[in-house]
Amino acid sequence: MAALTNKRILLAVRPEGMPKPTDFRSDEAPVPAPKEGEVLLRVLYLSLDPYLRGRMSAAKSYAQSVEIGHVMEGGTVAEVLDSRHKDYAKGDVVLSYSGWQTHAISDGKDLRKLDPAAAPVTTALGILGMPGFTAYAGLLTIGKPKPGETVVVAAASGPVGSGVGQIAKIKGARAVGIAGGRAKCDFVVKELGFDACLDHHAPDLAEQLKAACPGGIDVYFENVGGHVWDAVFPLLNEFARIPVCGLIAQYNRTPPYPGPDRLPVMMREVLSRSLHIRGFIQREFADQRPAFYQEMGQWIREGRVKYREDIIEGLDRAPEGLIGLLQGKNFGKLVVKVQ
Amino acid sequence: MAALTNKRILLAVRPEGMPKPTDFRSDEAPVPAPKEGEVLLRVLYLSLDPYLRGRMSAAKSYAQSVEIGHVMEGGTVAEVLDSRHKDYAKGDVVLSYSGWQTHAISDGKDLRKLDPAAAPVTTALGILGMPGFTAYAGLLTIGKPKPGETVVVAAASGPVGSGVGQIAKIKGARAVGIAGGRAKCDFVVKELGFDACLDHHAPDLAEQLKAACPGGIDVYFENVGGHVWDAVFPLLNEFARIPVCGLIAQYNRTPPYPGPDRLPVMMREVLSRSLHIRGFIQREFADQRPAFYQEMGQWIREGRVKYREDIIEGLDRAPEGLIGLLQGKNFGKLVVKVQ
Repeated sequence: MAALTNKRILLAVRPEGMPKPTDFRSDEAPVPAPKEGEVLLRVLYLSLDPYLRGRMSAAKSYAQSVEIGHVMEGGTVAEVLDSRHKDYAKGDVVLSYSGWQTHAISDGKDLRKLDPAAAPVTTALGILGMPGFTAYAGLLTIGKPKPGETVVVAAASGPVGSGVGQIAKIKGARAVGIAGGRAKCDFVVKELGFDACLDHHAPDLAEQLKAACPGGIDVYFENVGGHVWDAVFPLLNEFARIPVCGLIAQYNRTPPYPGPDRLPVMMREVLSRSLHIRGFIQREFADQRPAFYQEMGQWIREGRVKYREDIIEGLDRAPEGLIGLLQGKNFGKLVVKVQ
Repeated sequence: MAALTNKRILLAVRPEGMPKPTDFRSDEAPVPAPKEGEVLLRVLYLSLDPYLRGRMSAAKSYAQSVEIGHVMEGGTVAEVLDSRHKDYAKGDVVLSYSGWQTHAISDGKDLRKLDPAAAPVTTALGILGMPGFTAYAGLLTIGKPKPGETVVVAAASGPVGSGVGQIAKIKGARAVGIAGGRAKCDFVVKELGFDACLDHHAPDLAEQLKAACPGGIDVYFENVGGHVWDAVFPLLNEFARIPVCGLIAQYNRTPPYPGPDRLPVMMREVLSRSLHIRGFIQREFADQRPAFYQEMGQWIREGRVKYREDIIEGLDRAPEGLIGLLQGKNFGKLVVKVQ
């Protein structure tokens, strides 16, 4: 095989607040040959997700930070270029965790073979991948929506939020979305079938949300934090469940989101309304993945779950893509077509 | 039957902050005769519990407030003086919810017959009553301690905290208590068998707690709030469970406990440590009461669960008793011997 060049994007500087393009740098490196038990991958698609902001920080979180000078992490869809692993053959398309680079070596442990005939392979990064599974496991295991209850989720046009609302509808609940701008809200109601969707830029968001949830809120799937949480909190019913999978509105605040001094008030309400707040990472529910692939795959085939992708071209655009994602500029699951 | 006088203590004024004796007033009223289907009760013991502070406020909580000019509420042990109810006979001793008065009429719905031979009847207000059940249901249903895990609870010499720690020990966990002062801490370790107990007055409580929990905290049974929560929070392990049944340190703050602006920080940690915070009221778990009576009764008979009562004499002392309770002056389950 001819010598290949691996184009890579590295973390250059730990961002303060919102990341800047100069927090990243790119380089080129030779592509090593796979050793016995390894495969060489050619990355086709790179997933951009809010959690990557956490990996850029030194702060302790549920996963290790990316080291300065190392390749940025990320879920990817890749093609096997060369294999010395018994389970993978040249030409296989796999889900991998290869990060922001055009080529990678894997020992196979992080790979899952994809069937391009069953679903577009990009869905393995979105509705049929980690974000979709986050929605599925968090909503069904923690949120447990009952028929007639009201489920609220923000970033409702994104891969997690759209999954949450559509699964809530399948379970007989009302789904109220929150999204950035008219176009997203229209999509959420008209295409995804939510009962309502509110623009989080609206100065009267709290009042609009109250009007959209006349029976209060039974499940708030928390993926944004910030002022949406402020609007949601007073409307939470007794025994409300709050799965917490992300706080994107707070990731870029240094110091964090400057809400009023409400912690003691919050704990009083946790008590007086028997609230159930539960942070989670989808991998905790790994044993539910087979059920997820089966059920979500079927819901998509039946047209009961729809999804939207926002695909940008070229690895070089990954930094601007991630920055835009953190500002809510994407519309649907953000994926970089690497090559 | 000779005419009886009912001595009563009424809520006179809604307290601002810590209640004062003048927030209560007493009066006397005639005791009515029981009608068909009713019993006349002579109150023997009155339970004083932190939740009563909430009932004195107008603020919305999980139960109705006591109205101004009405009899203060409270759990009681009473003797049936006269019965026109088929299930109760003169001389029966019952658990009732008769409040701060010497006599009461009941239609039987709030009564549970007690067997004075099985256990001292005052335990029906403490370790074998609502506080003990709060400990049992909250710890086992929400806290779910596993062998080797560390369970922390404050007010550890009281009826809820002592139950939590002793049940944690029965389940194979380590129990670390927090209590007010040396005498209580000694009792918690030497009598109740906790692994450690710290004085919450200590200026270095956070450091002491860290030293007492070298493996971090897996379950924090929250019944006090305030600065204990501040000390606990940094030590919570991934997947820690926090049943929240009370916030006694915050009940008398107007405005509430003035902690730093930590709500956004807290939510970040809920996320990054997959914390599970769950407010609850014991009545939610009513279906577990038979199991509780059976198991807790057995543990007490076997000497595996011990308890301490703090009994004051005379209904007139109920206001000072409740005020002392809110200041941590009681030592064990606080009960008023009414007559």
